[in-house]
Amino acid sequence: MTIEKVVDFLKANDNFEILTHNYPDGDCLGSGYGLCLGLQQLGKNARVITTALPKDFKFLLNGVKEQDFKAECVVSVDVADEKLLGCNQEKYQGKIDLCIDHHKSNRVDAPLKFVDDTSAAACEIIYRILTEMGVTFTKEIANCLYTGISTDTGCFRYTNTTATTLRICADLLEYGCDSGYINKVMFETKSKKRIELEREIYDRMIFCCDDKCAVIYTTLEMTKGLEDEDTEGISSIPRQIEGVKMGITIREKPDGVYKVSVRTNGDIDACQFCKQFGGGGHAAASGCTLNGDLQGVIDTLIEAAERTL
Amino acid sequence: MTIEKVVDFLKANDNFEILTHNYPDGDCLGSGYGLCLGLQQLGKNARVITTALPKDFKFLLNGVKEQDFKAECVVSVDVADEKLLGCNQEKYQGKIDLCIDHHKSNRVDAPLKFVDDTSAAACEIIYRILTEMGVTFTKEIANCLYTGISTDTGCFRYTNTTATTLRICADLLEYGCDSGYINKVMFETKSKKRIELEREIYDRMIFCCDDKCAVIYTTLEMTKGLEDEDTEGISSIPRQIEGVKMGITIREKPDGVYKVSVRTNGDIDACQFCKQFGGGGHAAASGCTLNGDLQGVIDTLIEAAERTL
Repeated sequence: MTIEKVVDFLKANDNFEILTHNYPDGDCLGSGYGLCLGLQQLGKNARVITTALPKDFKFLLNGVKEQDFKAECVVSVDVADEKLLGCNQEKYQGKIDLCIDHHKSNRVDAPLKFVDDTSAAACEIIYRILTEMGVTFTKEIANCLYTGISTDTGCFRYTNTTATTLRICADLLEYGCDSGYINKVMFETKSKKRIELEREIYDRMIFCCDDKCAVIYTTLEMTKGLEDEDTEGISSIPRQIEGVKMGITIREKPDGVYKVSVRTNGDIDACQFCKQFGGGGHAAASGCTLNGDLQGVIDTLIEAAERTL
Repeated sequence: MTIEKVVDFLKANDNFEILTHNYPDGDCLGSGYGLCLGLQQLGKNARVITTALPKDFKFLLNGVKEQDFKAECVVSVDVADEKLLGCNQEKYQGKIDLCIDHHKSNRVDAPLKFVDDTSAAACEIIYRILTEMGVTFTKEIANCLYTGISTDTGCFRYTNTTATTLRICADLLEYGCDSGYINKVMFETKSKKRIELEREIYDRMIFCCDDKCAVIYTTLEMTKGLEDEDTEGISSIPRQIEGVKMGITIREKPDGVYKVSVRTNGDIDACQFCKQFGGGGHAAASGCTLNGDLQGVIDTLIEAAERTL
């Protein structure tokens, strides 16, 4: 499917609901609100459906109109699998008309799909769509798209960053995006609680596979009283350590559910690793969910890491 | 002075020595070796004079020819003050022919000066000079310039990053620069020793001025056996804490010398702050040197912070 067909579809339709994934991040929210702002600017009705809106992302709502309408058209952004719709899955399963994504592993079942895994972020695709639609890039739209691209590339540190990524963000800076504010909130600010959490994480870090794999974890006890923002991005901690090829982060969620993030360096495929457990994502950054008790989950993952490394 | 005049000067001369500042960082080394590679490509003799070359920056030497010649022309890059030449000051004081820099506070005494403080890094200026000179951007030159720009902008996180910064780096990516390797080494790799040091730093952190100022320090004892790389970038730690407007980092050096880095958010001028102690730099990132004992240095800086905040 070409970007022109996506544009034709969006122009021909109205009354959009835009779906994002659960545990929403900068890219799905930036894509969702960026697209919503663009559609509203063209005189259409649109709203974003999300399972949550973490406090640090509230500024993405700037300029978004609350519109009262009956939905006619469902678009998903940055959603690799309908399972990831969380509490919205039941309502929207099988009802997505257009799926826009950048995950190679995408398996959303939709009649129209635009999946481009050369884009560092879904927001890059939204940038192209809005440009093609003749949308005027306001400061608010630029902020949405910059947020998605900067968070999905670790502020341009990850290898998914391309020349196109940087050129799009150069344009967004010229459109007045407040990169100073966004970078500070997303990458430069740590709460005192976060610093305390990092110390605890370092204390309990487990090395295996000849120090080629590092495993960190947070328990409900450790994250009690912390905001989502305090725990965000911890999955980049283990991979940062010299010599570590695979960093595994385990987050305890209520009811014996463990959310696992895997980050890899070099030739190790994190997506392949997570597929064993029903998950997926990108080659260098993927995720999956395991059930059970903490020690069991750790043991299972270490065994799998030993087979992989 | 225009960039064209810089280019005319470089084209008209030969046998260059390129000076960098002491405690060399990515920008002065990237500028130095980038310019050196460009001049050598044009058939000229050039060498870089530096006080040290930290292990992580050794890759910048790739492609640089060791040439035997009698120096005729001295160019300084990223050097804001001749005092910063360190052990090379005595030899080169008053002998700089061309000064290329991006520090507003530059006070090098040279007949030809090109100082552009809208450039995020001196490497941006070198990029413009090499382009103007018709140099072919090899992978090695691109690596030098990308290293300088990415390190001086905290990988594009700091507010000195402009649309031009991003577009230059987009070009460098297309010229084959190994941004994946450079980002990993500069921003993504922490030794186990570094993690241990961070824990110690957090344990001893001092807050003052109603938590608007955070002071961290390293002693010779704490950094014993550590490489320069293990301690690099710690000055960004205190400013990252929520609510902190001024982050002060004190590093003990031998013989009662303390190297101080000041990082500020918002309206506080770090350069003005450091000038009180004979230092300088940029509005958001400056430095100075104090002598005495640790407690005295801490007290002096806290008193100054209380006057400022």
